[in-house]
Amino acid sequence: MAFKFADRMDNIKASEIRELLKLTQKPEIISFAGGLPAAESFPVKEFAKASGEIMKNNGTAALQYGPTEGIDTLRKHIVNRLNKVKVNAEFSDIMITSGSQQGLDFSAKLFINPGDVILCEAPTYLGAINAFKAYQPKFIEIPMDDDGMMMDKLEDALKTTKNVKFIYAIADFQNPTGRTMSLERRKKLVELANKYDVIIIEDNPYGELRFKGEILPAIRHFDTEGRVVFLGTFSKILSPGIRLGWVNASPEILSKYIMIKQGADLQSSTISQMDTAKLLDEIDIEKHIQSIIALYGKRKELMVKTMEEEFPSNVKWTNPDGGLFLWVILPENVSARDVAVKALEEKVAFVPGGSFFPNGGNENTLRMNYSAMPDDKIVEGIKRLGKVLKNL
Amino acid sequence: MAFKFADRMDNIKASEIRELLKLTQKPEIISFAGGLPAAESFPVKEFAKASGEIMKNNGTAALQYGPTEGIDTLRKHIVNRLNKVKVNAEFSDIMITSGSQQGLDFSAKLFINPGDVILCEAPTYLGAINAFKAYQPKFIEIPMDDDGMMMDKLEDALKTTKNVKFIYAIADFQNPTGRTMSLERRKKLVELANKYDVIIIEDNPYGELRFKGEILPAIRHFDTEGRVVFLGTFSKILSPGIRLGWVNASPEILSKYIMIKQGADLQSSTISQMDTAKLLDEIDIEKHIQSIIALYGKRKELMVKTMEEEFPSNVKWTNPDGGLFLWVILPENVSARDVAVKALEEKVAFVPGGSFFPNGGNENTLRMNYSAMPDDKIVEGIKRLGKVLKNL
Repeated sequence: MAFKFADRMDNIKASEIRELLKLTQKPEIISFAGGLPAAESFPVKEFAKASGEIMKNNGTAALQYGPTEGIDTLRKHIVNRLNKVKVNAEFSDIMITSGSQQGLDFSAKLFINPGDVILCEAPTYLGAINAFKAYQPKFIEIPMDDDGMMMDKLEDALKTTKNVKFIYAIADFQNPTGRTMSLERRKKLVELANKYDVIIIEDNPYGELRFKGEILPAIRHFDTEGRVVFLGTFSKILSPGIRLGWVNASPEILSKYIMIKQGADLQSSTISQMDTAKLLDEIDIEKHIQSIIALYGKRKELMVKTMEEEFPSNVKWTNPDGGLFLWVILPENVSARDVAVKALEEKVAFVPGGSFFPNGGNENTLRMNYSAMPDDKIVEGIKRLGKVLKNL
Repeated sequence: MAFKFADRMDNIKASEIRELLKLTQKPEIISFAGGLPAAESFPVKEFAKASGEIMKNNGTAALQYGPTEGIDTLRKHIVNRLNKVKVNAEFSDIMITSGSQQGLDFSAKLFINPGDVILCEAPTYLGAINAFKAYQPKFIEIPMDDDGMMMDKLEDALKTTKNVKFIYAIADFQNPTGRTMSLERRKKLVELANKYDVIIIEDNPYGELRFKGEILPAIRHFDTEGRVVFLGTFSKILSPGIRLGWVNASPEILSKYIMIKQGADLQSSTISQMDTAKLLDEIDIEKHIQSIIALYGKRKELMVKTMEEEFPSNVKWTNPDGGLFLWVILPENVSARDVAVKALEEKVAFVPGGSFFPNGGNENTLRMNYSAMPDDKIVEGIKRLGKVLKNL
């Protein structure tokens, strides 16, 4: 049968990463492709204890419907997470989402008419591109340097483009580049959003995972007009399987997100929320995050050190101060998709970078994840990849 | 600030039920307004045991990302649920959703361009209306009688209307009327969908909760061309707090739902899925469903019997063979919204029926839920409501 789907479906493709991940789930593959947190970092015992207590003392409530905006106890814990990135929020300014991916989908649903413009870092998070594309926007890519999105290029775009609805930015340890936006640029970004009357969608899944230096204030910290929407998540500091993230926004905007959530899935899992709130009552989450930072920091150092030893000199990469990813730039004539095929023959996987550019191109780039593989596999995988690159 | 939201947001309102539920959560209110399953029916101890075992033996996997389409073990259990309504499905034809509400949102996202037409029962589920409205459809309401949607009226609409994308139907113990579509009409519905080349979205949250007679084959049972999409849920047979439902559709269509799910929230809670699959391994779910049926059947009988005794003779109602709701029709000049205000003064709540008609009108109707209140409150609530109705 040939069914008539909505026009928006022409824009929606299966995520290249998800498809690739299926190939790379074989245990013999050394995969730098996914964005998986290190499973050994999960607080399994503590979660088991918290969830046991919830089922024993609040089991009925955990299995029942709850409020669309999320349960109060968890929203209160999220206030602490926001304080960490210097955002002052009341718990009533927070709505729980099913991961920050849902926050991305809702953001486009809330702001984008077909043909409206989204300004974003180039490259940017593939999952955001896919979520946004369902609402038929145009993307204008703003170039980055080591201090993040370039503000002069951003202002050029704002000056010359109609129907810009929002700027999408991952200011901290950006996916896919690992780059961080400087303090000055964060201030400038809010200034420009005010001046040109656009919204900022700040996606901040990694901000707390800083290996060195101090955590920077979020873009939302500088928000003077309630036009910055902050998306956060427990996926990278606790567990992605619980599927819990949040939106923090000014009341007028948040009330719209709540209406969207009602239509989309009524609410996120009550049991996930109650278990997680209980866990956060009981564990020292700051200490837990420190242990993740120690683990990922060490893996990142090892990956960069091994790349320095094994990669040919015409290959460049970023050296992030936090997060899960670094970005590799190959010589201009080399296609990372071709390299990926050869690497898979050597049982090593990564994600070719072209997919992270909403308007295509930049095929000589690739993304490497360092959070999910143990030390020996990082060394072995980079060695094999070095060999592939030297043989080009 | 006055922010520029997307045009679709003009269509999205806060759910009247959800707003009303906030008012009615005070313990002194006897509420027939919600759609809550009886909390005393939840298998709390069994769920605690299953979830304890998962955290002990598979805790790491439960906290990690999982596949977008859902975990295999749970999808296999869903095959049994589909067999119950005589739908033959492979587990690969099933995608897990975050409640069937998410299936509704995705269905409109998949099929509806602005201005496209949805045909639905009049009245129909408010949550579906709200989910669909975000995609800017037109609704054509198809009248019902005691055998459900009227097929001659449906064919009239199909004949004379362009851009009909799908027919939305709740064939079993419909929300809000409690009515069930006859076997003959189910067959006819599929015939008409084939003839006029439209999709059927079959929403079946209550099909297994039949108090008397035999479970009817689902509409999807009669599907010859892979054009019926079946939405199911664990909310009413197990727990709504786990937020787990499913889509069953032909492979071409299901693959599109999976792409939408990737963009919308990547996947539903791994831990909810694994706990639920384990629970279904361990309990006798058929016996559990029988106990829910016994409870709701008794409550429905009590409500109807008390209404016969207490309501004035110019008030009519349906007498469902299953599900959670019945439908009350007041004299034509009476507004159920006015009655609701007076009833709340007597500390009794229900949902005025007008909201269940996408194009408005029918203000002399109301929906009553009988699953959530114990016997004594049903009797007392109906008595008070009877008094209000007699005083009109």
